[in-house]
Amino acid sequence: MTETLETFPNPHPTRDYLIEHQAPEFTSLCPMTGQPDFATITIRYVAGPACLELKSLKLYLQSFRSKGIFYEDVTNVILNDLVAACSPKWMVVESRWSVRGGIHSVITAEHGDRSLRS
Amino acid sequence: MTETLETFPNPHPTRDYLIEHQAPEFTSLCPMTGQPDFATITIRYVAGPACLELKSLKLYLQSFRSKGIFYEDVTNVILNDLVAACSPKWMVVESRWSVRGGIHSVITAEHGDRSLRS
Amino acid sequence: MTETLETFPNPHPTRDYLIEHQAPEFTSLCPMTGQPDFATITIRYVAGPACLELKSLKLYLQSFRSKGIFYEDVTNVILNDLVAACSPKWMVVESRWSVRGGIHSVITAEHGDRSLRS
Amino acid sequence: MTETLETFPNPHPTRDYLIEHQAPEFTSLCPMTGQPDFATITIRYVAGPACLELKSLKLYLQSFRSKGIFYEDVTNVILNDLVAACSPKWMVVESRWSVRGGIHSVITAEHGDRSLRS
Amino acid sequence: MTETLETFPNPHPTRDYLIEHQAPEFTSLCPMTGQPDFATITIRYVAGPACLELKSLKLYLQSFRSKGIFYEDVTNVILNDLVAACSPKWMVVESRWSVRGGIHSVITAEHGDRSLRS
Amino acid sequence: MTETLETFPNPHPTRDYLIEHQAPEFTSLCPMTGQPDFATITIRYVAGPACLELKSLKLYLQSFRSKGIFYEDVTNVILNDLVAACSPKWMVVESRWSVRGGIHSVITAEHGDRSLRS
Amino acid sequence: MTETLETFPNPHPTRDYLIEHQAPEFTSLCPMTGQPDFATITIRYVAGPACLELKSLKLYLQSFRSKGIFYEDVTNVILNDLVAACSPKWMVVESRWSVRGGIHSVITAEHGDRSLRS
Amino acid sequence: MTETLETFPNPHPTRDYLIEHQAPEFTSLCPMTGQPDFATITIRYVAGPACLELKSLKLYLQSFRSKGIFYEDVTNVILNDLVAACSPKWMVVESRWSVRGGIHSVITAEHGDRSLRS
Amino acid sequence: MTETLETFPNPHPTRDYLIEHQAPEFTSLCPMTGQPDFATITIRYVAGPACLELKSLKLYLQSFRSKGIFYEDVTNVILNDLVAACSPKWMVVESRWSVRGGIHSVITAEHGDRSLRS
Amino acid sequence: MTETLETFPNPHPTRDYLIEHQAPEFTSLCPMTGQPDFATITIRYVAGPACLELKSLKLYLQSFRSKGIFYEDVTNVILNDLVAACSPKWMVVESRWSVRGGIHSVITAEHGDRSLRS
Repeated sequence: MTETLETFPNPHPTRDYLIEHQAPEFTSLCPMTGQPDFATITIRYVAGPACLELKSLKLYLQSFRSKGIFYEDVTNVILNDLVAACSPKWMVVESRWSVRGGIHSVITAEHGDRSLRS
Repeated sequence: MTETLETFPNPHPTRDYLIEHQAPEFTSLCPMTGQPDFATITIRYVAGPACLELKSLKLYLQSFRSKGIFYEDVTNVILNDLVAACSPKWMVVESRWSVRGGIHSVITAEHGDRSLRS
Repeated sequence: MTETLETFPNPHPTRDYLIEHQAPEFTSLCPMTGQPDFATITIRYVAGPACLELKSLKLYLQSFRSKGIFYEDVTNVILNDLVAACSPKWMVVESRWSVRGGIHSVITAEHGDRSLRS
Repeated sequence: MTETLETFPNPHPTRDYLIEHQAPEFTSLCPMTGQPDFATITIRYVAGPACLELKSLKLYLQSFRSKGIFYEDVTNVILNDLVAACSPKWMVVESRWSVRGGIHSVITAEHGDRSLRS
Repeated sequence: MTETLETFPNPHPTRDYLIEHQAPEFTSLCPMTGQPDFATITIRYVAGPACLELKSLKLYLQSFRSKGIFYEDVTNVILNDLVAACSPKWMVVESRWSVRGGIHSVITAEHGDRSLRS
Repeated sequence: MTETLETFPNPHPTRDYLIEHQAPEFTSLCPMTGQPDFATITIRYVAGPACLELKSLKLYLQSFRSKGIFYEDVTNVILNDLVAACSPKWMVVESRWSVRGGIHSVITAEHGDRSLRS
Repeated sequence: MTETLETFPNPHPTRDYLIEHQAPEFTSLCPMTGQPDFATITIRYVAGPACLELKSLKLYLQSFRSKGIFYEDVTNVILNDLVAACSPKWMVVESRWSVRGGIHSVITAEHGDRSLRS
Repeated sequence: MTETLETFPNPHPTRDYLIEHQAPEFTSLCPMTGQPDFATITIRYVAGPACLELKSLKLYLQSFRSKGIFYEDVTNVILNDLVAACSPKWMVVESRWSVRGGIHSVITAEHGDRSLRS
Repeated sequence: MTETLETFPNPHPTRDYLIEHQAPEFTSLCPMTGQPDFATITIRYVAGPACLELKSLKLYLQSFRSKGIFYEDVTNVILNDLVAACSPKWMVVESRWSVRGGIHSVITAEHGDRSLRS
Repeated sequence: MTETLETFPNPHPTRDYLIEHQAPEFTSLCPMTGQPDFATITIRYVAGPACLELKSLKLYLQSFRSKGIFYEDVTNVILNDLVAACSPKWMVVESRWSVRGGIHSVITAEHGDRSLRS
């Protein structure tokens, strides 16, 4: 899936700085019922050689609109795809889901050097 | 009580990632007065081999609807039952109760490797 | 059901004044699935000869805990029962329900002389 | 009780303007259980010949600290006392009470010419 | 499109009472760019002979997930479909859209006897 | 005091439109204790021939910094001064004061044609 | 300036429904100091034969970025331009400005048949 | 004073878990002026052998209603009394006071093993 | 300036506890323009032998009302004066200023043993 | 670009204290589309020999109004310019951008001795 993710060279590669993108319009399908799920996806990372290009990130996240996938799985898949695309020094992906069955869920997966967290 | 708690295999067992479920519709009974109590139950965990299945978690939490049990006790009982069901590396259960006698209470119990907290 | 609703004489019957009680801990059952529903019930009224006694109102609302009943029905039933119990000059009952299937519902039923609304 | 309520002459008696005082630190006693009750009292009025002096209003409201009195009654008593003290063209008194038995109550009583409301 | 909208008989047809359903998980497509749009749809009505059944309402709203349609159009189409399905005495449909091009839009369409608004 | 209030010609005198200025940094002195009082002053008006110039309005409001004056009085004085300065078709002045003695006060005075309110 | 404002035919011309667009990213220049001003512009209207096209509305609002113009003036100019572009049955334009000199301003201008307001 | 504080045996003594009680209805008297003071008292602790019984905690806190005592003093006195009553492994008491003389105060006192804080 | 700051003996000198006073009604003058500045001053400290008396603290903060002084300077001056007056083990002073020129500023200065921070 | 940034001598150079300036009115242009971008810029620093003068900081930030520059780049450029201008011991610059394509971004860059963070 990572072919649609474009990047651009990190303009300040000698400094470790934090980039955050929050996408409140994420939707996928429940693999068991086929019903739509809705989430806010938040991505925070310290770039390595490359930064995520915003428009291609938007299109990448839209590509889940017709996929059936579990909460825990999609969060890790997004993290894996973004890491493969831009080789960050550190990255975290959080998915915050609308209520289902009276329960509100949040999944958070992290990659790389945790000393870069702030 | 743990027989009603179902799990599914952790889809990304090689990464320690955080799962949170918040259930604002919990109700049990006061063991002294028989009056209903209301709470929001929040569960955060780093899965071991298995993840909690959401629908069975909902039914498990509903099973307290007609039980008389104290705040401190129910919080620890839920933690014990969930730990027995899915063997997490780390788990915390928080219960946040509606006002009684002008006092608002919160009970928080934790299990496992605290270095996994974030 | 109204036998459990107690009242006391309106202490200032010559003035039309507004009384509001908001009960955020209402729960009943879905008549189709048996699943618990949760609502905040708000009652506003201008008393006639009698006022609703708070403790009996609490017990009356708790009596729905094990009843299966639809949103639209329970709102009108509560209004009918309270009107029968205290003969208000004007009364409105609003039920504000937790999200079900991604939808949040509010039902509002009114009785009596609308010129007393404020 | 009105002897402790002092007033001063309305400095702009030819204009009908609105005065509001909100007192979030009101406390009285429940006449049935002796337990303390807590409320925010809001007073809005269009003055006639006199305005309520703030310090004496504060002391008047404090005089309920050891009184046992029902919600509906105290709201009307405050309105009656304030009307007797300053003869307003229009006045409303609202009492907004802390939760008791899971129920939050608000009582609102009004006096005088409603066309002056805004 | 109205064939998927089911109703049930109004349980209290002799009283004009207000029903509100708010659906924050609505999504359709922009007819010009094909990009997803996101909205919260709010429906308020006074029922005639029939009430909207919630599950079928949810499925009806989901049926726009792959449709390209303008904000102004979809709001009126939903109103027309719901009116055809349940013949309400009064109904209003409001769509509140996520920001596009730095602009946040809200469309509101109304049907029937406006004296029933409250 | 009105000599410091400057105005400019209403740029659209044929339309009745609403102008609002909110000044959260107002301070004067209590005439009884000499202690500072703090308020937010809100001015809303429909201009006649002239509009209030913002910088001179700011300086006018600052001129109360060392004046001892009661809440009810200063609100009416500001209204009188602004009306004298710009002859509005309609104007309202609201002063919203910091808590004193546990009481929060708001005074609102209005001038002119109330049908222009919105 | 109206040449850049495009419209499309009202898709439901037989019903009077409300359209609202809120643009929080408006900026112009102060005509006296040349300093940038920032505002949120809100437009509400009941369409006549035509609706405002969103992308051209965005570009129209951006055209003020380098213009020096007063708060009162720009609000009326936008209203005049939008009315000329789409001939609405009713329209209101509100501009809500960032604090200047400790004062926060809001200007609201209206056109057409006020009975269509809601 | 501690004679009125009752406890019950810690139901899960082998686990260090957190208990929090928040009481927003605390009132005492100023020892200098005799005027009432109002505070929210928050108690957080890790129980040793015993837990605080809620009803007796409520009555204990009410026992300050007619006492004249300074902010700093009452916070430490409550901590000392609660520690004497239940021998917690760790406890913190926070008092958050209503504004007096334009100043809002918070006092926080802690007892025991700080490594148990979370 | 410290002569106006009064203290009283720390009533619990053997325990290190936290005292916080927040004063939202601070005003001074800009030394360059003479225009008034407004801030919220927050003081947090662990007392040594003495505590700050609240009324004298209020008067001390009011003494800046007619002083021209920069943000950075006044924050450090207040910290120096309070430290001189009561010899705390640790103290922090934060000043949070109203917007000037579209910029909101916060200055924070600290004194003493940082291990006492919490 | 740093020639327009003026400073003044740090008035308390022997103490490491925190200075924060938040500017919610920042705007630049997208280098790809030419469309305006909007951000809140927050600057926190511990001064070395010099402090940033506020008016020149405002003018410096306004100088980006007509520049085309990426989010990641402008954040680092501002940090570099401010560091060159005032040689702080520690500084962080955060830019928080309005939604674009349904995504909200935040970029945070830091310079100097991180042990001074608080």
